[in-house]
Amino acid sequence: MSEREIQKAPPDPSRTAAVGAPVLRVDAADKVTGRAVYLDDMVMPGVLHAALVFPGRAHAEFRGVDASAARSMAGVRSVVTADDIPGENQVGVIDADQPLLPFDRIRYEGDAVAIVVAETAALAREAADAVSVDSTELPGVFDAVRAMEPDAPLVHESGNVFLHDKVRKGDVDAGFDAADIIVEREFRTYHQEHCYLEPLAALAVPEDNGSMTIYGTMQCPFYVQKAVARVLGLPLASVRVIQTVTGGGFGGKEDAPSEICACAALAAWKTGSAVKLVYSRQEDFLRSSKRHPMHVTFKLGVTRDGTFTAAKIRAVADGGAYSTLTPVVAFRAAVHATGPYEIRNVETDVYGVYTNRQTTGAFRGFGQPQVIFANESVIDEVALALGIDPVDIRLRNCLDVGKRTATNQLLTESIGLKETLELARELSGWNELRQVSARPDEKRDHVLHGIGVGSIYYGVSLGAKGLALDGSGAHINVYRDGSIRIGVGGTEMGQGLLTVLAQIAADSLGVPVDSIHVERADTSVVPDSGPSVASRTTLMTGNAVIDAAAKLRAVMGEVAADLLGMDASEIEFAGGTVGSVEKSVTFAELAEQCWARNVSTAADGWYAAPESTFDENGQGDAYAVYSYATHVAEVEVDTETGQVSVVRVTAVHDVGRVLNPVTLEGQIEGGVLQGIGMALYEQMKTEGGAVVTPDFSTYIIPTAMDTPEIRTAFVEHPYSKGPFGAKGIGETPAMPGAVAIANAVSNALGVRLHELPLTPERVRQAVSERKDS
Amino acid sequence: MSEREIQKAPPDPSRTAAVGAPVLRVDAADKVTGRAVYLDDMVMPGVLHAALVFPGRAHAEFRGVDASAARSMAGVRSVVTADDIPGENQVGVIDADQPLLPFDRIRYEGDAVAIVVAETAALAREAADAVSVDSTELPGVFDAVRAMEPDAPLVHESGNVFLHDKVRKGDVDAGFDAADIIVEREFRTYHQEHCYLEPLAALAVPEDNGSMTIYGTMQCPFYVQKAVARVLGLPLASVRVIQTVTGGGFGGKEDAPSEICACAALAAWKTGSAVKLVYSRQEDFLRSSKRHPMHVTFKLGVTRDGTFTAAKIRAVADGGAYSTLTPVVAFRAAVHATGPYEIRNVETDVYGVYTNRQTTGAFRGFGQPQVIFANESVIDEVALALGIDPVDIRLRNCLDVGKRTATNQLLTESIGLKETLELARELSGWNELRQVSARPDEKRDHVLHGIGVGSIYYGVSLGAKGLALDGSGAHINVYRDGSIRIGVGGTEMGQGLLTVLAQIAADSLGVPVDSIHVERADTSVVPDSGPSVASRTTLMTGNAVIDAAAKLRAVMGEVAADLLGMDASEIEFAGGTVGSVEKSVTFAELAEQCWARNVSTAADGWYAAPESTFDENGQGDAYAVYSYATHVAEVEVDTETGQVSVVRVTAVHDVGRVLNPVTLEGQIEGGVLQGIGMALYEQMKTEGGAVVTPDFSTYIIPTAMDTPEIRTAFVEHPYSKGPFGAKGIGETPAMPGAVAIANAVSNALGVRLHELPLTPERVRQAVSERKDS
Repeated sequence: MSEREIQKAPPDPSRTAAVGAPVLRVDAADKVTGRAVYLDDMVMPGVLHAALVFPGRAHAEFRGVDASAARSMAGVRSVVTADDIPGENQVGVIDADQPLLPFDRIRYEGDAVAIVVAETAALAREAADAVSVDSTELPGVFDAVRAMEPDAPLVHESGNVFLHDKVRKGDVDAGFDAADIIVEREFRTYHQEHCYLEPLAALAVPEDNGSMTIYGTMQCPFYVQKAVARVLGLPLASVRVIQTVTGGGFGGKEDAPSEICACAALAAWKTGSAVKLVYSRQEDFLRSSKRHPMHVTFKLGVTRDGTFTAAKIRAVADGGAYSTLTPVVAFRAAVHATGPYEIRNVETDVYGVYTNRQTTGAFRGFGQPQVIFANESVIDEVALALGIDPVDIRLRNCLDVGKRTATNQLLTESIGLKETLELARELSGWNELRQVSARPDEKRDHVLHGIGVGSIYYGVSLGAKGLALDGSGAHINVYRDGSIRIGVGGTEMGQGLLTVLAQIAADSLGVPVDSIHVERADTSVVPDSGPSVASRTTLMTGNAVIDAAAKLRAVMGEVAADLLGMDASEIEFAGGTVGSVEKSVTFAELAEQCWARNVSTAADGWYAAPESTFDENGQGDAYAVYSYATHVAEVEVDTETGQVSVVRVTAVHDVGRVLNPVTLEGQIEGGVLQGIGMALYEQMKTEGGAVVTPDFSTYIIPTAMDTPEIRTAFVEHPYSKGPFGAKGIGETPAMPGAVAIANAVSNALGVRLHELPLTPERVRQAVSERKDS
Repeated sequence: MSEREIQKAPPDPSRTAAVGAPVLRVDAADKVTGRAVYLDDMVMPGVLHAALVFPGRAHAEFRGVDASAARSMAGVRSVVTADDIPGENQVGVIDADQPLLPFDRIRYEGDAVAIVVAETAALAREAADAVSVDSTELPGVFDAVRAMEPDAPLVHESGNVFLHDKVRKGDVDAGFDAADIIVEREFRTYHQEHCYLEPLAALAVPEDNGSMTIYGTMQCPFYVQKAVARVLGLPLASVRVIQTVTGGGFGGKEDAPSEICACAALAAWKTGSAVKLVYSRQEDFLRSSKRHPMHVTFKLGVTRDGTFTAAKIRAVADGGAYSTLTPVVAFRAAVHATGPYEIRNVETDVYGVYTNRQTTGAFRGFGQPQVIFANESVIDEVALALGIDPVDIRLRNCLDVGKRTATNQLLTESIGLKETLELARELSGWNELRQVSARPDEKRDHVLHGIGVGSIYYGVSLGAKGLALDGSGAHINVYRDGSIRIGVGGTEMGQGLLTVLAQIAADSLGVPVDSIHVERADTSVVPDSGPSVASRTTLMTGNAVIDAAAKLRAVMGEVAADLLGMDASEIEFAGGTVGSVEKSVTFAELAEQCWARNVSTAADGWYAAPESTFDENGQGDAYAVYSYATHVAEVEVDTETGQVSVVRVTAVHDVGRVLNPVTLEGQIEGGVLQGIGMALYEQMKTEGGAVVTPDFSTYIIPTAMDTPEIRTAFVEHPYSKGPFGAKGIGETPAMPGAVAIANAVSNALGVRLHELPLTPERVRQAVSERKDS
């Protein structure tokens, strides 16, 4: 299906026997054989089952519930409400605006007002449906732009606009004055659902001495730990969170698991029994977070030679009923709003706005795909207007060493954007295809071919707004047979983390990768390692593993030196042996010797992100390093049906260093598909706050049949602070694809669409506009 | 029921807010409410159940099994035999003499020859009973002394005597020449069963990537990890062992869990499912290890003034079918055979001998109670012969600073033996009661009163024969709210370890004890920490906690110094605050600051035992430090029924430093009861290798009705290398009691018995001998 190419950097001076190799995923066999135990597979002694009571209203005064009918059902153990919460009724991950269970106001239809606990899941659901909710409907607001109007109903008393992030660089008026042409356009994107295979699920188990263990499908065990401790009024040490095999996240399991886990924990606390809570797909749609709908106005000034002189962006993000992760999503949108280009004059304003809809938060790309759709569309339009090739106009303005970002950050290293553009052009056959663009298909003259490009950059890890969270731990335990077990705080959610960490550990200790077992995350083992988001986990946890391995090499190296009669400084760890070319012991022998001498072979590792900055004008070194990518999409547009088919995607990524080409490729293929979904199919619709696309018969995602040929390539520009030079790959594959497709459709049709997804209805509308014009 | 007294040492210069306080056991509430989850309470997805096939013969040639009938039963999933073992068919903990499943020879009736796996435990048992065993009976040997004879049947081809430990100090012939009287006697003790509340049980769960997680009731997770890895041919890192709430151990869960866990793991490996294996009480009697039956000849030379001049001991220990832990039990018996006295000339020989009976291994006291019965009986007899008070003769010879043990070890510190003797004499009213000893009861003239004493010493931790195992780890994780979670390698088996470690951590970090949560042992968290045996866990793991806490104080102290504008060297951790009397932050604030600054607040701790030595003549510094105790028992002996009642026990212990007086007292009360059991009731009988006392209707243990008044007292002689000065308490409470009772019975009757237990039959026999004489 796909080909892969790597533009390699010079070899890393470190040993790289495992790093860079296509090591088989350590969890592959268990997943394909069905042996992996997901949360809903788990059983516990005396486990009870919970179901949530939903209000059926999007905005209402809430007075309480009548649970008498539910309570009288045999097998119903408890009905838990806000009054039962022993700690704080609060799960807001950044702002304290989100009660776990509403006590006076319902703010969206996913606001569960009670938890029913029963002996079976079916009974819990039945009893939850028998709970009546005493509430009075209030007028709601279901659009962020409307919510900004002075007379809009208030979702929170503090006002609907809860956030305004800005970037002010240079003199934007002077910049537009210097421009030969100025293009300003409005763009709209809507709710996108994560559609992970495994819906949200949690199991809370009361343990010794009043403590609680939480199992769940999640990205961020430390968020869950904090939320559960807060709701139960427990110290953090009394809450242990263990991540179970997680069937996808994509950002949707960043903050939402805190809610479901806190509900399960509260029910377990109330009943004294283990309690499981698993969302149906419909509940997951109703209650999980989504990609922010955004309304983006993008204005770009350009000189005749294609140089960008000024950009002005206004983006309004629908945050839904609670702010959740919007502050950090908006920050990222603001920082990256002008795309991976040097523009001297920038004015960006991003607003976060409450509505009576689903909360919106992290979704692969984290606020960027929406602004990318705007900036990369406008750039294409400008290129067309100036008669400059779209790839050329990007190359003319693209970021590189010595250039400055919109936050005026001077870039110093690891910038492969230019090569991604050049390689994508070459591999996609851009020049040839662009010559014949908008050509009709040879056999079907109502089908038009088009090709489009999109480029992006992405600040890796949490940046200036998340610095306090931006450390990560690892704990390595070497056993006396030389085998190794590693505990980490980062999570495997399908992206291949456990495999890549095993590779990093293997090369750090000079041992075979199959001697290493990496555990799924457990909050009892490592310090708060922040969330597994923002393409940070390989970088942060990988560096923590390297730090722990260095400590082990120091301790074990002393023993080796003593055994071999060498100086410790001469000791090398490589190829499963320790010592030098002349004399060595095997790593296993050395481990046995350390054991026999009572030398501890465990070590903690830690990595903290470098300092970053962001002032009130949005100026500063926002992120320590950036990843870059360019996608080229070829499409066929059926002008009769409005159907768009993606024929081929060429995806070229600069990831610093390729640690595992196969898992990287997997990441990219998945991201390309999510980009296709965003471009063509996915829009979660609500009416009056009710989700009207609550399942996969109404919410359409790409299937295997919609999968194009995907050509993947990598450009290596090693990052000096990355593990073996790596940066991150999690987010970027889902970012340039949607706009590359939109640009290809524009190329095919000669008409530009300003809303995603490019549904057949919208495309037919564009076709008819084209005919009209 | 009991009173407690502590002869305190001067206050420790370290802060001791928690240490020394009667802190409530952290696991108390869960145990008394029934919420604690024991192994058999656990459930797992798709769990299967195993049952073992027993041969019904004690010694036989084994050719195989016919499992066709079992296999044909619906719900039976597998019948596993030695042929299925992917790794090594070996679970010998020291010598490789014990197959997990016999392949050619059955050596005792507990030698399981196959494992049946079925959907329910009852079905597994039924199917196991339907397996027929193809074997030919061989002549067996069921007594260790008989087994030493040249014509005895051989249990292993290598010969029945598999071990000979000796101690040679001074010139024993010259020592006897210098004596005024010499007493030589023979003593016999028999199998004692541990009688923990919870029988052996294991659950093996196949995990990701071919690894295996083992849950079980156990003392030594690292032994289990090694055994399972060996049997399955897996690296240690692929075997994770998690100790479940453990309902008692007493040594019986030192080596035996390796067998049951390896059986469960093998069955899980074969079926690919989680497998649970739980012994019935009868199976536990049949298959678990016991206290060694010993035949001890003790010869003591003494001058007229009561000075011991020479001792010669020969002890034969019945090791059963496999050597298991006999080598280390015999070592301990040999080192301590002469009791806590300085004797210049010593010759000790201890033999370990195979028989076709249950394996014998660790049991509280670890080989010492049997030799103590001999040496403390003979000393009493000598005292009587010389007209010296038994307490006085012990005081005259007892070990103290500057004296030397039988292994010629010069003792330098932490020796409270003398005070235990003096305090026991005082608290028991010894002088008064001894005056009227052997007096008839005022109301029942066939009942005679007696009082007896016994003193012991015990080398703490593993000593010279276990040095490579004698390290211990801890891992402390401080959360941002200042609460603390600690992972350890030592196990809680009811003795109160988790509580005492929380106390040690609390004082080491100057925080409240309830801010600390100590996890049960998990092999994935800390390096091999050796076994939880030999009174070593408080000492070793406690020191590891202190080591980790010191590292945390260093790291967090730097941050505190920066916050407070102080020098790091001035920073103190006390009372939940950090800083000085003048200025400080709370520990929780400091933790939050560390988090905000991305400073890792996790640390590994490690403690390795000091060097110890033991040469081929049994000379050397066998253990780093010793604990001491004296018990005085008052008894009533019914000369008509032969019934002995223990009226009062005064138990005085030198433990270095009292860390928690309540849990210490609990340890002692339990040990006193086990001493009563050994003295009066407990003897597991076999006939031709078959256990004829396989349950509590035939194997009699003391009940609440048999519990005497117990007066507990402590003498503090802090150990410079102990955590806050503590040594160990696990073993010593079960050691002096049996002989103190035997000495009291002798005191009452004027006749000495040389076999334990002092059953009514044996006592009536002694009474009739007294009348005859």
